[in-house]
Amino acid sequence: MIKSLEWKGHYLRIIDQTKLPGELTYRDLKNIQEVYEAIQKLRVRGAPAIGVAAGFGLYIGISQLEPTIPDEEFLKKSRELADYLISSRPTAVNLQWAVDYIFEQISDNNLNNREKITRCLKLAQELLADDRQRCNRIGEYGSELIPDNARILTHCNTGALATAGIGTAFGVLLKAHQKGKKLEVFVDETRPLLQGARLTMWELQQAGIPATLISDNMAAFAMKKKHIDGVIVGADRIAANGDTANKIGTYNLAVLCQYHQIPFYVAAPLSTFDISLDNGEQIPIEERDGEEISNIWGKLLITTPNAQTWNPAFDVTPAELISAIITEKGILKPPFGESIKKVI
Amino acid sequence: MIKSLEWKGHYLRIIDQTKLPGELTYRDLKNIQEVYEAIQKLRVRGAPAIGVAAGFGLYIGISQLEPTIPDEEFLKKSRELADYLISSRPTAVNLQWAVDYIFEQISDNNLNNREKITRCLKLAQELLADDRQRCNRIGEYGSELIPDNARILTHCNTGALATAGIGTAFGVLLKAHQKGKKLEVFVDETRPLLQGARLTMWELQQAGIPATLISDNMAAFAMKKKHIDGVIVGADRIAANGDTANKIGTYNLAVLCQYHQIPFYVAAPLSTFDISLDNGEQIPIEERDGEEISNIWGKLLITTPNAQTWNPAFDVTPAELISAIITEKGILKPPFGESIKKVI
Repeated sequence: MIKSLEWKGHYLRIIDQTKLPGELTYRDLKNIQEVYEAIQKLRVRGAPAIGVAAGFGLYIGISQLEPTIPDEEFLKKSRELADYLISSRPTAVNLQWAVDYIFEQISDNNLNNREKITRCLKLAQELLADDRQRCNRIGEYGSELIPDNARILTHCNTGALATAGIGTAFGVLLKAHQKGKKLEVFVDETRPLLQGARLTMWELQQAGIPATLISDNMAAFAMKKKHIDGVIVGADRIAANGDTANKIGTYNLAVLCQYHQIPFYVAAPLSTFDISLDNGEQIPIEERDGEEISNIWGKLLITTPNAQTWNPAFDVTPAELISAIITEKGILKPPFGESIKKVI
Repeated sequence: MIKSLEWKGHYLRIIDQTKLPGELTYRDLKNIQEVYEAIQKLRVRGAPAIGVAAGFGLYIGISQLEPTIPDEEFLKKSRELADYLISSRPTAVNLQWAVDYIFEQISDNNLNNREKITRCLKLAQELLADDRQRCNRIGEYGSELIPDNARILTHCNTGALATAGIGTAFGVLLKAHQKGKKLEVFVDETRPLLQGARLTMWELQQAGIPATLISDNMAAFAMKKKHIDGVIVGADRIAANGDTANKIGTYNLAVLCQYHQIPFYVAAPLSTFDISLDNGEQIPIEERDGEEISNIWGKLLITTPNAQTWNPAFDVTPAELISAIITEKGILKPPFGESIKKVI
């Protein structure tokens, strides 16, 4: 299986996803700045994967602090490192969740600094193992929603590259495929960074699942002409009412599903839920450099020089457009305000 | 003003739009094969512009026939040349309309072959002049639909490059701007061939109209977050009931407009209407080489080698999603079956 990230004893090895599918290149992250940079530049990406990466990043950071400094100062510096990591990307809450969870656990006053460091590594390793488990369960539950001979459309990348396991939305498709269901997957290329074209097409081919690449704007016509049976996507943050932030273009698809009367599924672990937010309006949306639109991978200028752009990396899909949310604790149905409360 | 095509006495000069906006290159088309190739490869594009180009193409073709051959044979060969031109692109009906119109006019038995050739050139020149007039009228009528301080989203390219005049949907925006209305235009990049990013952004900048480029999948979020007031697009073929074929992604936008309760306008000359077709199901949809998706301009492979793709160049927007169709004879409102009948 593809391993998007792997702990190598003293450093974190990641696949540099910006180079895929042309090159399968690994990158060894040996200090916290390198972890920050890898997340910020999308070398490691996908909400669950960046949560796990940040867990190891925190360990790398605090293990390089001077362990003999006073406890209080150690904790203060650890918190600064945690906040630094959290600031690398604002929308996916899994990152914040993972870092805050580990920080809270190591804040225990009964632990000395060396023990805090040891504990931090253990927690990061547990997060990685847990994510693998969660993906499996999401895949199991979700695969029941996929009919045989289904044509499913997906967006962005939600597979092994986006998680520490088999993926979220991708894991659902993989499990359905492994259960012998016949599948054809339509893949949105996912502009501007083309994660669908680059990563999901690659993972589907590796898994032996028939895949057809389309431009994002072909989704509506594909629903009609190719008789798409459903859309499944991942998530970067889900508010208490079920409103879901995910890769830009997701909201588009959800509206199209409603018009074509086909189900729209979200697959995400519980670490993606942020019940401190009432609704999606409150989710911070990362806006990235417009160069990502105007200049493909810095290699090909596709518009006039200095063209003004708007480049939100995510959008918010209102809960009313979501048919079900697949989690490791089962399939949540509307009204999500209630079904989410029951599992969190 | 930008001239997408210009008759130079013995040949047709076009702007090679595949090179824009990087290079403003002209191409002189001196035989019918060159005209065919220029249309097929999208060097000249836009439904009205390819109609005019094909008119001159027919003239170039028949003027290179031996004029002393028997009348009947001359006409037979002319028809073959007409069909050859029509086969260059199947969806936009303006091409077929222009070629068939000219052919019918020159089929008059009272004309000898030399007179047929002379007549053909005159008709092609009239088409060019007429298209300019039609664009002006569409712009005048349509500009009344654009409120002051409007934020309008458009797709693909419908400007001077797509016509022999100021454009269709673009002409509406230009006239509104010239009347002093404050405008901000959001431009879908329009994958796979990026006509919005390359051509519309360039034309808007030339016209001094504020423009913001987005990826196609950002349209829904732009409608919500940037408070888009309306969408306006061109058309390649409109059936008797108002169903409209236009650049792939148009149908997407129309569905999004309905959900966000904002108007969706189509601007097109009457040569775009094909009332021989009851509805959009009957419009032939060109499917182009998948390389256009997987390999941007043949320069940048964005997916796995040999990825399967689906690349329809157009989609069909059902009439029920269209708020109004702006023509040179005024603004048509639903029910379009009736309003179209009145002007054709």
